[in-house]
Amino acid sequence: MNYGIIGYILGRVIAIVSAAMLLPWAVSLIYKENVGVIFLLCAIIFGAVAAIFIRNKPKNMAFYAREGFVVVALSWIVMSVIGAIPFVASGEIPNIVDALFEIVSGFTTTGSSILTDVESLSRCMLFWRSFSHWIGGMGVLVFILAILPMAGGQNIYLMRAESTGPSVGKLVPKIQKTAFLLYAIYTVMTLSHLVLLLIGRVPVFDAFCLSFGTAGTGGFGVLGDSFASYSPFAQNATTIFMLLFGVNFNFYFYILNRRFKNALAMDDVRWYFTIYVAASVIITVNLILSGQFGGLREVLFQTSSIMTSTGFASADFNLWPSLSRALMIMLMFTGACAGSTGGGMKVSRFVIYFKTVAKEIRQLAHPRSVKILKMDGKPIEHDVIRIVNVYLCSFILVFATSFVLVLTDNFDLTTSFTAVAATLNNIGPGLNMVGPTGSFADFSILSKLVFIFDMLAGRLEIFPMLLLFSPNTWKKHG
Amino acid sequence: MNYGIIGYILGRVIAIVSAAMLLPWAVSLIYKENVGVIFLLCAIIFGAVAAIFIRNKPKNMAFYAREGFVVVALSWIVMSVIGAIPFVASGEIPNIVDALFEIVSGFTTTGSSILTDVESLSRCMLFWRSFSHWIGGMGVLVFILAILPMAGGQNIYLMRAESTGPSVGKLVPKIQKTAFLLYAIYTVMTLSHLVLLLIGRVPVFDAFCLSFGTAGTGGFGVLGDSFASYSPFAQNATTIFMLLFGVNFNFYFYILNRRFKNALAMDDVRWYFTIYVAASVIITVNLILSGQFGGLREVLFQTSSIMTSTGFASADFNLWPSLSRALMIMLMFTGACAGSTGGGMKVSRFVIYFKTVAKEIRQLAHPRSVKILKMDGKPIEHDVIRIVNVYLCSFILVFATSFVLVLTDNFDLTTSFTAVAATLNNIGPGLNMVGPTGSFADFSILSKLVFIFDMLAGRLEIFPMLLLFSPNTWKKHG
Repeated sequence: MNYGIIGYILGRVIAIVSAAMLLPWAVSLIYKENVGVIFLLCAIIFGAVAAIFIRNKPKNMAFYAREGFVVVALSWIVMSVIGAIPFVASGEIPNIVDALFEIVSGFTTTGSSILTDVESLSRCMLFWRSFSHWIGGMGVLVFILAILPMAGGQNIYLMRAESTGPSVGKLVPKIQKTAFLLYAIYTVMTLSHLVLLLIGRVPVFDAFCLSFGTAGTGGFGVLGDSFASYSPFAQNATTIFMLLFGVNFNFYFYILNRRFKNALAMDDVRWYFTIYVAASVIITVNLILSGQFGGLREVLFQTSSIMTSTGFASADFNLWPSLSRALMIMLMFTGACAGSTGGGMKVSRFVIYFKTVAKEIRQLAHPRSVKILKMDGKPIEHDVIRIVNVYLCSFILVFATSFVLVLTDNFDLTTSFTAVAATLNNIGPGLNMVGPTGSFADFSILSKLVFIFDMLAGRLEIFPMLLLFSPNTWKKHG
Repeated sequence: MNYGIIGYILGRVIAIVSAAMLLPWAVSLIYKENVGVIFLLCAIIFGAVAAIFIRNKPKNMAFYAREGFVVVALSWIVMSVIGAIPFVASGEIPNIVDALFEIVSGFTTTGSSILTDVESLSRCMLFWRSFSHWIGGMGVLVFILAILPMAGGQNIYLMRAESTGPSVGKLVPKIQKTAFLLYAIYTVMTLSHLVLLLIGRVPVFDAFCLSFGTAGTGGFGVLGDSFASYSPFAQNATTIFMLLFGVNFNFYFYILNRRFKNALAMDDVRWYFTIYVAASVIITVNLILSGQFGGLREVLFQTSSIMTSTGFASADFNLWPSLSRALMIMLMFTGACAGSTGGGMKVSRFVIYFKTVAKEIRQLAHPRSVKILKMDGKPIEHDVIRIVNVYLCSFILVFATSFVLVLTDNFDLTTSFTAVAATLNNIGPGLNMVGPTGSFADFSILSKLVFIFDMLAGRLEIFPMLLLFSPNTWKKHG
């Protein structure tokens, strides 16, 4: 393990987080909140810490997959620990585990909350909470790469380990250019949504926070009823933008480069919209038949919000009939496209699972017919299928372990199951106690630590976190 | 598709079922139940039908994997349709779908029931119901192979498609000898259990039915409270025999052949007992802490019953605290050993899943270290890993589809989820409405048809049923 380079990269991460804290400090100046000075203090202190780390430029720049995974996992943990300090120091979230839960939920763009009264928080804290979604949405290491390129081949390992987009590296020859383009698209889309929210008469402060939460597919709101009290226009605009942020960003790359054919050939994007429409239709019919239909806007908003893993709510879907509730749970797992800011297991994985099964059945019926699995018109490499399968097994393993640990709190099965599903898939709300009107406040410390692990594992697609906690990783050999 | 040989084998299956019906007829003579004559009539009629089928010896004996899967799926469907007739004809289960549900639950050794009052059935019907567990437990095609060998290589395809034991064919050179030995072990174990039940003061009729239900890991009882009113001795004996029938039968092969080293090296058997003990310990602690502990006998019985997919109940585990209930659900999925009469996804598959994940994490940390996956001390073939992964995807696909369809009945999530889990894993009872004291009576016809499909899919390990319903299978090419 090359500890030198790990420290060096962590230093840069700390620098970014310190710089980011200047923004909520600025917000506190606008709203004349004295508590905001905490952000300035944190920025200064951790800025200094970062400087020490960065000055020690490592002699050995060797950097491989292992270092990539470890540094990514550690970055997100360090980021969260620093990010939680203002909550604790201000006394607005006095419990350390709660504060950590809240900021991890922010950075991982989950949106689950331990707060029972969001509106009691000061503006600068609310801003920091929502801004963490925006930072986490595109990945903080991608940001580092965009502005501070590093020499050598290490970039690709970093980008892969943070898994914003599985094939992003192939699109543009230079990693730095890719990272920069990603952030440019991300910023332009965020601003467009912000403008629409303002047109929709959403207050300026709310509009900023909500556009951050949408862009990162995070889901922290600033009002107790999440999205229900904003104008229909603002809700519809958000439905569309949540969906757009759940699309594989390669799609936008292709569009920008006028490679429309490539864009339209993307299997996961087509399946993503197909699943969205199908789920919306079934839920609509189910709600009409059970006499609970509150309008199409409501259905489209909720479905978009859960499938993209955002987690805003304009209606309490916990009160929906069983079939609709179950579909919401299933959408939590399918999630958005890989290479988007969204969470879940990702549509593209399910496309591969489905194609594998179809191929197997065909092969059993006609053993001599050879059929190759294709994705986006190109054959899928054997290694990709293998890793996608291992991912499924790892996911189930982490899910089952978390479920058992969380059940020691003795809440009902649906609460416990959806609480794990909502955190591991980075959704936000679940059902019953953790439904859109509930919170994670009443879980024990053990459960909250499990959720923190799950949110990080979900955001980093499991392997970095498992690697970090495997004793084998820290052994010298091979 | 070679339709000739499919008809020929189906003829033999019909012959077996017809012959088997003479037993409940004999029971009806003992208890002087006039209704039992239905079994005699069925035996005569279907015996004649079978004779016609069998007389048409096919000219072309070519028989491959596709024919194997199709004939196995059709056999179980034909068997069930014939087996359901006495229920309908006697008027004891007048609804056709209900009668089919009940006998499919019997043959597939599931044990789920649409009956709300078991004790109202006549003795011969109760006997037939339990006897179907015994027939289904070891697989009816294995039975055919044991007594009526066929020429050529087709036997291995039949045996594989029915999936009693994945590597059984390798143990003894001659398939017929293997099949015969399997049935010999099965019969001796059933009789031993029967004797113990009689010693435990279980009435003779009950003892026969319960030993059939245990051997097949089925779970149909003859009393309304399942197992609760039998003596502690009978309960403990059944705990042990359920566990024994959940062991991979290769283990007994090895023991009989004095290959003790091989027997002890079996990974899945060791994991099977480890999981059983671990689950029992956690449930015991959970029950003690929540003040619901009713004695170790109760816990050991329930855990054994669910894990082996039998489904007898000596206590209402639906009333247990959340953690214990969740563990019961999880045990439904892990199931028993492959190559046993038990259901579920099988411990050996989970062993492979777990080893794949562990290997991947190790490989990511140390890319140059090459480690080969081993099972029972031997390397696992690449094809086995692939098929085990495809199985997981197929299982999830069938589960999710069934879940959505069943939810149209608008029962609660736990009822719907565990109802699918209990049928697809061939367990029997689930939780809430389908808990140990409940039944499947109130589901709609659509849901019952889904459950029938799931029970068959679960028993035949999914692929034969998917193959049967895939249009591709019936096309000519390859």
